[in-house]
Amino acid sequence: MDHAATTYVDPRVVQAMLPYFTEYFGNASSLHSFGREAKEALENSREIVAKALGASPDEIFFTSGGTESDNLAIKGVMYANRSKNHIITSIIEHHAVLETCNNLQEMGFNVTYLPVDRHGLVSLSQLEDSLTEKTGLVTIMHANNEIGTIEPIKEIGKITGEHGVYLHTDAVQSFGKIPTNVDDLNVDLLSISGHKIYGPKGVGVLYIREGVKIEPVQHGGGHERGMRSGTENVPGIVGLAKAVEISQAEMKKESERLVNLRDKLIEGVLEIDDSWLNGHPSRRLPNNCNFSFERVEGESLILRLDAKGVAASTGSACSSGSGAPSHVLTSIGLTPEQANGSLRLTLGKCNTEEDVDYVLEVLPETVSELRKLSAV
Amino acid sequence: MDHAATTYVDPRVVQAMLPYFTEYFGNASSLHSFGREAKEALENSREIVAKALGASPDEIFFTSGGTESDNLAIKGVMYANRSKNHIITSIIEHHAVLETCNNLQEMGFNVTYLPVDRHGLVSLSQLEDSLTEKTGLVTIMHANNEIGTIEPIKEIGKITGEHGVYLHTDAVQSFGKIPTNVDDLNVDLLSISGHKIYGPKGVGVLYIREGVKIEPVQHGGGHERGMRSGTENVPGIVGLAKAVEISQAEMKKESERLVNLRDKLIEGVLEIDDSWLNGHPSRRLPNNCNFSFERVEGESLILRLDAKGVAASTGSACSSGSGAPSHVLTSIGLTPEQANGSLRLTLGKCNTEEDVDYVLEVLPETVSELRKLSAV
Repeated sequence: MDHAATTYVDPRVVQAMLPYFTEYFGNASSLHSFGREAKEALENSREIVAKALGASPDEIFFTSGGTESDNLAIKGVMYANRSKNHIITSIIEHHAVLETCNNLQEMGFNVTYLPVDRHGLVSLSQLEDSLTEKTGLVTIMHANNEIGTIEPIKEIGKITGEHGVYLHTDAVQSFGKIPTNVDDLNVDLLSISGHKIYGPKGVGVLYIREGVKIEPVQHGGGHERGMRSGTENVPGIVGLAKAVEISQAEMKKESERLVNLRDKLIEGVLEIDDSWLNGHPSRRLPNNCNFSFERVEGESLILRLDAKGVAASTGSACSSGSGAPSHVLTSIGLTPEQANGSLRLTLGKCNTEEDVDYVLEVLPETVSELRKLSAV
Repeated sequence: MDHAATTYVDPRVVQAMLPYFTEYFGNASSLHSFGREAKEALENSREIVAKALGASPDEIFFTSGGTESDNLAIKGVMYANRSKNHIITSIIEHHAVLETCNNLQEMGFNVTYLPVDRHGLVSLSQLEDSLTEKTGLVTIMHANNEIGTIEPIKEIGKITGEHGVYLHTDAVQSFGKIPTNVDDLNVDLLSISGHKIYGPKGVGVLYIREGVKIEPVQHGGGHERGMRSGTENVPGIVGLAKAVEISQAEMKKESERLVNLRDKLIEGVLEIDDSWLNGHPSRRLPNNCNFSFERVEGESLILRLDAKGVAASTGSACSSGSGAPSHVLTSIGLTPEQANGSLRLTLGKCNTEEDVDYVLEVLPETVSELRKLSAV
């Protein structure tokens, strides 16, 4: 129940990748037939991803993952438009966005970190008020990785569009779970990761709308039409494309199934005393639950659940072990203690109703055990 | 015969990777058992790579490939030591190094591009003369990707060491073919790529000697001890480590075999009129041949050889199709026409003596055909 951290690779994806390791293993830049086969697979993958986003293949750039996509989007746009040195983001972004913004701030760029309400939503009017003549980019995530809140990207895109400011969204958690058509969302740049959608790790996508002024951040042989140098990871890209294809075909049905499981889980868990749901009651990813339990230490809860066969997380995987309370949970108003007493359960394709029942069986007793210990 | 462009993935490497796609697929940052399995595989891989380089595991950082490793090494060191704004490199580096240096130059850093002699060697005295109080980094490739020339890295490292300047080497082409012990080579940073050593694409290594002052260039969740954010590509890393392990076990024997094949190929090809070998006669990668043929257009030669079942290249794969003559070949004194009439044959594990015989059969006739056409 930790599918927001990563997913297994769908066996159909593995099957799609395998021939590209040993048989069609060419370098897509080579002129000979091995190279042409690789190039064809690469461009075919680009078309699949473009179609899923409602974009043109020329707007799809393959990267090494969501973090690189976020770095490229934000640094690439800010470096290319030096006269505009102001970025607007939110305080609950993924670290790949936040740390990139922090890095730019250290280099002299100005960054506005918008607060969020208690459900994790950015305020449209605060966003609009923060826009200045110098704003070069707004970067707001599509859905939050910890609490699952879905931001009003379409409405934000309307505002940024009216002001002629680029909008980037990190869609790593939303892609494949809710619709992510780039025109519907009014976005100019959008990041995807392979390993959150039953595709491989080490591969991602940045969608860049035609005409967006952006510079590469990784330099070399000029791959990906100069936007991202480095020999193309053809097996990874083929796998990502297959995962995208599957996710688009199965999304509607699977998301409905997950919503049912999620809601059963939420209803059951909230019967535990002194517990609550973090995030938005309705604008929420189909697979995300995030709870807090008073007088419980989240890491102990994770380890005990793990011993009972339930993989879960407190906060995001990326900041696990740091000991610091989740910046997302403190931003929606939790105290550090409450934030450290949180549990994220994120459902996925392999989860069944039996899994939900099992969690509802073991979680209450585990919370009780920990509370007894803590009382001692 | 284009193993310098890329290699197939060794079936033993694919076997090593497979369980990490579907079974041990955890996020290495997760606290639960899936995460711990992934973390263990990651750290085990780090030890294998460290051992192969004569380094400590703490000095090994996984990246998305050779290009990223080069970018991180050069930008990371130069950003972290702003009072030293001068880089020394050579004019025949891979584009991943050259374009990174060009980018830094545009940002105000000073770059010295050392010339090379007609065999492709950097001059030690010129290098030493170029060092200034402001030099922060020397980056010289271990072996050239087009002409196979092996640079005197050990001797360069002695000079940089005496002057207290960091030395980075791009060992993408040399690793697994000739020894690359970081202490023997006197280097502070060293880049490796997975897909040149029968490992997967999309994964690489940067060795960073303990104590080197360096900044990350990709920001996010702080993976790889803060040096390279982004969820670790565990299957890719496991595959890379397996490829490293195999390459170290088989290198001596395989390199001897390749040298024999290479020398037979060189001897045979040079019987063609108006042909010569580019690169160094003895300081040369075991698998590299680079020829020029007067009155022959390289791309046509590649396509005709491809039709006859021989995969080869003119220049590097990374700059194929650009139409520009190879910067390496013009740097060793060839005219643009001569550079465009070159052929790189790079041998690998799958090549046999029969392959060499076959090339020696079809290449002379193909060169003749093209010369007749060109005469017309």
